[in-house]
Amino acid sequence: MAKLLKNPVKLALIQLATTADKTHNLSHARTKVLEATKAGARIVVLPECFNSPYGTKYFQQYAETLLPSPPSASQSPTYHALSQLARDSNAYIIGGSIPELEASSKKLYNTSLTFAPSGELLATHRKVHLFDIDIPGKIRFKESEVLSPGNKVTLVDLPEFGKIAVAICYDVRFPELATIAARKGAFLLLYPGAFNLTTGALHWELQARARAMDNQVYVALCSPARDMTAEYHAWGHSMVVDPNAEILGQLDEKEGIVMAELNAERIEEVRKGIPLRTQRRFDVYPDISEGKIKFEE
Amino acid sequence: MAKLLKNPVKLALIQLATTADKTHNLSHARTKVLEATKAGARIVVLPECFNSPYGTKYFQQYAETLLPSPPSASQSPTYHALSQLARDSNAYIIGGSIPELEASSKKLYNTSLTFAPSGELLATHRKVHLFDIDIPGKIRFKESEVLSPGNKVTLVDLPEFGKIAVAICYDVRFPELATIAARKGAFLLLYPGAFNLTTGALHWELQARARAMDNQVYVALCSPARDMTAEYHAWGHSMVVDPNAEILGQLDEKEGIVMAELNAERIEEVRKGIPLRTQRRFDVYPDISEGKIKFEE
Repeated sequence: MAKLLKNPVKLALIQLATTADKTHNLSHARTKVLEATKAGARIVVLPECFNSPYGTKYFQQYAETLLPSPPSASQSPTYHALSQLARDSNAYIIGGSIPELEASSKKLYNTSLTFAPSGELLATHRKVHLFDIDIPGKIRFKESEVLSPGNKVTLVDLPEFGKIAVAICYDVRFPELATIAARKGAFLLLYPGAFNLTTGALHWELQARARAMDNQVYVALCSPARDMTAEYHAWGHSMVVDPNAEILGQLDEKEGIVMAELNAERIEEVRKGIPLRTQRRFDVYPDISEGKIKFEE
Repeated sequence: MAKLLKNPVKLALIQLATTADKTHNLSHARTKVLEATKAGARIVVLPECFNSPYGTKYFQQYAETLLPSPPSASQSPTYHALSQLARDSNAYIIGGSIPELEASSKKLYNTSLTFAPSGELLATHRKVHLFDIDIPGKIRFKESEVLSPGNKVTLVDLPEFGKIAVAICYDVRFPELATIAARKGAFLLLYPGAFNLTTGALHWELQARARAMDNQVYVALCSPARDMTAEYHAWGHSMVVDPNAEILGQLDEKEGIVMAELNAERIEEVRKGIPLRTQRRFDVYPDISEGKIKFEE
């Protein structure tokens, strides 16, 4: 059987301190990504909404239309900057997420862009599950007032390494995406996300570890740094978890980079020790990964 | 909409110190269950293999055939004792699990018995996923050398309260059972189980909290007490988790009882705060609970 992960790879999560200045955010992201790739990272993840503040009132203002190649730097600055950065750093860049404006429909999405080291856009993921939450006295947020949801599970083949899955923040709460991705051969589930101080304290680490344990794959969550002067307070605590749900690295709430080396042997060792994959009882309950699934918008 | 849980209920988990003496185990279980019901418990759970040592070489020796009513005390002592105990204590008793011998086939199962306060056997659950595990240098165990697996998801209606799901130990690692049960209306997932010192430290609490978080139901795991003179060392740490994955009570490794009050309002509050149930995207991926599922052996 072919290895799920063809070569060992250093993964870096950039817990970026974002501001209201998009140009600054992009240049600052570039500095931090290059810092990570100089240290050996070949897959680099930016947080959810890394080029803008997070909040329904900001999405329209910061939104960009994703233009087909060659992208125009002035009309689609984030696309252009990430593509260039992937080339310059020789790394796969998961451009956490940005507000996206679809030109034809005028709809807004919360969208992640994955670039190859060639600069090619390999995939986009539009957040499938919009963050509509209301915990009285704690946190209320309603993305669906402004955003439209994506309509697919996103698996991306990184030719040098293997398949990863990308989903965004609240998507992590719906285990179907993780289960499908892992059963379809992903070695890593990536979730750029910005949990808040309520849900972060409750469930951030638990989500990462649960998805890893149940699917025996690497899982990474990448948050913006916390800014208590901003309207939305992100949890931070970007983290990488191994296929046995053990934490390989986790930040606090401040800006930083967490790196981890991922390898096929660890996945195989965990799956051999606790052989869930061969013990499932698809004669008693269905295999969700064999059902009808949308992989295209 | 009818409440998932019709009346508030006190749940008790008996972390029993089991021995090699079945008669003693049964009388000791009776003492501890009555202690819990005197304190107000109406649903009482015993651990996996509460009437025998845990180990493949013991299952045959301790196995009982479940006889139709009226059970014979001499031929099916555990069935008889639990039925009597349910009547005497006016509680629902989940008789964690026992080794069961099916008379017709001579097959052995790891089986849980749920009794109503009337003494009636409401349901059995035969462990669906047998514990076959091999973590080099840590733990090797192969239930399938001796046991046969069950073939169904077990939902039990407790007329005074509502539906619960019962599964055993290693079954908890397969999230499908929990997902199906919760979507079919269970308010509580019960797992009598005996994780060991390796898997217990790694995943016991994580399993309980993950199932609760993803399904927004109460979850309880009930272990035997740890006995370092026995062949198998159980993790202990019996615990009850609320629908938001918050721990309501957890024991250490010694014998004890953990109790918690469960109520419908908490389930509703959690589900209103984080409305997963209405936000799932069954247009993107299937709803496993609508697939083909075995609810009968």
